Amino acid sequence: MADKKEAKEEKGITVKKNDNFSEWYIELVQKAELADYAPIKGFMVIRPHAYSIWENIQNYFNNFLKNEGVKNAYFPLLIPDSFFKKEAKHAKGFAPELAYIKDSEEGELLAIRPTSETIIYDSYSKWIRSWRDLPLKINQWCNVVRWEVKQTKPFIRTREFLWQEGHCAFESEKEAEQNMNKIIQEYKKMAEELLAIPVLVGKKSKAETFAGANTTMTIESLMPDGKALQMGTSHNLGQGFSKAFGIKFKGKDEKERYPWQTSWGFSTRLIGALAMTHGDDKGLILPPKIAENKIVIVPILFEDSKSSVLKKVSEIGKKLEKHNPILDTREGYSAGWKFSEWELKGIPLRIEVGPKDIEKKQAVIVRRDNGKKEVVSEKELEKKVSKLLDEMQADMFEKAKKFLDSRIDSAKNIKELKAKIKEGKIVKVFMLDDIEIEKQIKEETEGATSRIIEESKKEGICIKSGKKTNTIAYFARSY
Amino acid sequence: MADKKEAKEEKGITVKKNDNFSEWYIELVQKAELADYAPIKGFMVIRPHAYSIWENIQNYFNNFLKNEGVKNAYFPLLIPDSFFKKEAKHAKGFAPELAYIKDSEEGELLAIRPTSETIIYDSYSKWIRSWRDLPLKINQWCNVVRWEVKQTKPFIRTREFLWQEGHCAFESEKEAEQNMNKIIQEYKKMAEELLAIPVLVGKKSKAETFAGANTTMTIESLMPDGKALQMGTSHNLGQGFSKAFGIKFKGKDEKERYPWQTSWGFSTRLIGALAMTHGDDKGLILPPKIAENKIVIVPILFEDSKSSVLKKVSEIGKKLEKHNPILDTREGYSAGWKFSEWELKGIPLRIEVGPKDIEKKQAVIVRRDNGKKEVVSEKELEKKVSKLLDEMQADMFEKAKKFLDSRIDSAKNIKELKAKIKEGKIVKVFMLDDIEIEKQIKEETEGATSRIIEESKKEGICIKSGKKTNTIAYFARSY
Repeated sequence: MADKKEAKEEKGITVKKNDNFSEWYIELVQKAELADYAPIKGFMVIRPHAYSIWENIQNYFNNFLKNEGVKNAYFPLLIPDSFFKKEAKHAKGFAPELAYIKDSEEGELLAIRPTSETIIYDSYSKWIRSWRDLPLKINQWCNVVRWEVKQTKPFIRTREFLWQEGHCAFESEKEAEQNMNKIIQEYKKMAEELLAIPVLVGKKSKAETFAGANTTMTIESLMPDGKALQMGTSHNLGQGFSKAFGIKFKGKDEKERYPWQTSWGFSTRLIGALAMTHGDDKGLILPPKIAENKIVIVPILFEDSKSSVLKKVSEIGKKLEKHNPILDTREGYSAGWKFSEWELKGIPLRIEVGPKDIEKKQAVIVRRDNGKKEVVSEKELEKKVSKLLDEMQADMFEKAKKFLDSRIDSAKNIKELKAKIKEGKIVKVFMLDDIEIEKQIKEETEGATSRIIEESKKEGICIKSGKKTNTIAYFARSY
Repeated sequence: MADKKEAKEEKGITVKKNDNFSEWYIELVQKAELADYAPIKGFMVIRPHAYSIWENIQNYFNNFLKNEGVKNAYFPLLIPDSFFKKEAKHAKGFAPELAYIKDSEEGELLAIRPTSETIIYDSYSKWIRSWRDLPLKINQWCNVVRWEVKQTKPFIRTREFLWQEGHCAFESEKEAEQNMNKIIQEYKKMAEELLAIPVLVGKKSKAETFAGANTTMTIESLMPDGKALQMGTSHNLGQGFSKAFGIKFKGKDEKERYPWQTSWGFSTRLIGALAMTHGDDKGLILPPKIAENKIVIVPILFEDSKSSVLKKVSEIGKKLEKHNPILDTREGYSAGWKFSEWELKGIPLRIEVGPKDIEKKQAVIVRRDNGKKEVVSEKELEKKVSKLLDEMQADMFEKAKKFLDSRIDSAKNIKELKAKIKEGKIVKVFMLDDIEIEKQIKEETEGATSRIIEESKKEGICIKSGKKTNTIAYFARSY
């Protein structure tokens, strides 16, 4: 047993979330077996526990895509360097992050995709001929590589990550605008309803707009350390790429036109957001809807009642099958050791079954998020479990929402802005939407950027330029 | 309408399968919108129609993996060059095909994964400590790059492809052997039951064994042009990699041991096999089980009955919902044009509904594989459709099985072997399982290789060395 106790202590997270958030996160990711370091700097191994979260996200979003008529496809990993140069802003935005292939003998450099607008729109220029070919709506799930120079962090910022990127082409500007908005609303829904992470939705400022887009919409959440996290973006690309790649269609009036395009994506960063938002000092806490296994059933074993307890565990397991329960009947581990293990991994509900419970025809249910214990009669078990899972999902969202709401503030001048950003807040200020002005504010606030902007009905004074403006920018430090 | 007719002619495949198989295949792949060429040599774009086939294969195989306790994960795209050098045979096998990253500043070269044994087993050496950690069973779905010098062909041989690679570690040699065999049997089942492609299952000769494996099992099919196609392999890796990567576990007896490992994979090549095996001069033919849309319903439209026909089509569509029917109600295309389009794409059943059919409370069903037309009463429609789909699946397999069986032959000497291989056969010969001997036979037969070997009860004479042997090798040209 000594051997086992040691194992347990080694297993637990040694840093408290409130003491050192960054170290807590790194330990959580490794000890909950979400990810492990790779032998190459900035890369990571996504372990099965995290990958199952990603698969659930994929299933959820694939359902949405199907209903929207978006089809999945797969485009090449490597992109000719000349493609990046076709759309000037896009080229400038991605140039510093490209990883090239050595000696490809292709007559030009080949880069690993950092995003696939260029290679996909090369195909679109062949596939789109007539209005009949529109709208064209394609998505791909794939890996991308961005040779980040910034400090990397598992899931949040890595040189390789997994994502989905949707690419649509429409006859009219209006359709593209509607698509951009529909997608960002769906991202918000997914973040809030599936992952229980509340987000702000809004437009990006000029300084923060995607390289090559007319408009970028984003969903932004706030992590417990007061840094904002961009969780998904949806771009109205206008006709910039269609002109650069010569995508043309013959309209119903026989006239040749350039289509209007959108692109949109979210990545495995969502897994990092999930861990940061909901984790505690014991480990991960998974919102029930995203958990592959919503329950773990742990038998309390004594030699003389072992067989009846195991029988009951299997019986309860069958009853609760739709929640995909883990039956932790392993021998050689104490019940306490098992409790810690599954708390670390964030399984939403734990059901304990011992000989006394069998006598009293009951079981003990423990919620992972608040640790509340309830004794439930066997008869009520199914109903109670469903109810607790629903309540837990709602409570986790509410808790995170309260935190986010409590951290939104406003400032009237740079000094106030600086102070409130230091407190880990998202701070609303009037700001002229201008790249140079935002750059200056970023410098003065030691790196804060506008996460979203919105148009106010009332006019105000730009905190930097002193000019009148209706634009409100939400500033925060960010990942 | 002239404009539309032209479009139709342009759409159809212009080469007959029997006249020029290779050109027929290339046209089929493009015109059925399975794949398109990428701007980089040897790469391809997997279009939605083919990607939906891949997704169905993934769903099918993920179910199997779940039942087997194999979990999905994701490992890095890039592998340090030194990792390849750790297992000597593996290094030698893959060295010519590696694509490296330029200026990675990592102190050593980084290669894009051609397969992931080395990077995965680096993680295994950290994760495996005790017999309690075994068996460890992990799979990943990912892209790989092999810088092929051979002629590339969409799906069949490309520089990048998608695949699954399973990697298991066991306490005992016996478990590894069983796992290797179980997987290859599952691959056979998938090929035959899902894709309707009959295969030979067997062991690879020494010359054809995977670089780094003790034993390789394979499933091999024969394409209509008489070339064999390897459709999936399963390797017993022995302890070669566990020793090279220092993967050790403490056994129940407290002694330190190296685990026994397997790896196994199949790729998007299966889509090429599907197209080659089942396609005809009109286009693709999808076995019903793999088709995303098993039915297309085409209304026969006349101005005066249009609304009642469209209503009926929608009604029938709802009735047959579980087969995910396409309702081709597009205007501006003739029924004949639509027939050709869906024949090209290989939709298993076509249902035609016109005003006369409504009058007679019937519909016309046409099978894609044999073109047989049946008039079916509306009442019988659901039952009939299910029956036809089952029959079509079985008939397609039987047809392909007859072809394969008819092409298996045997030879007593090199001359006979050479002649029969030229006829596009798989030819059984006695052969000592020796790398040098097989190399010589390959040269004399202008490139034929052994696809599988088996042990005969009766002893025979090796056709090359003249020595006695029990080994029978199945020779064929191959992709």
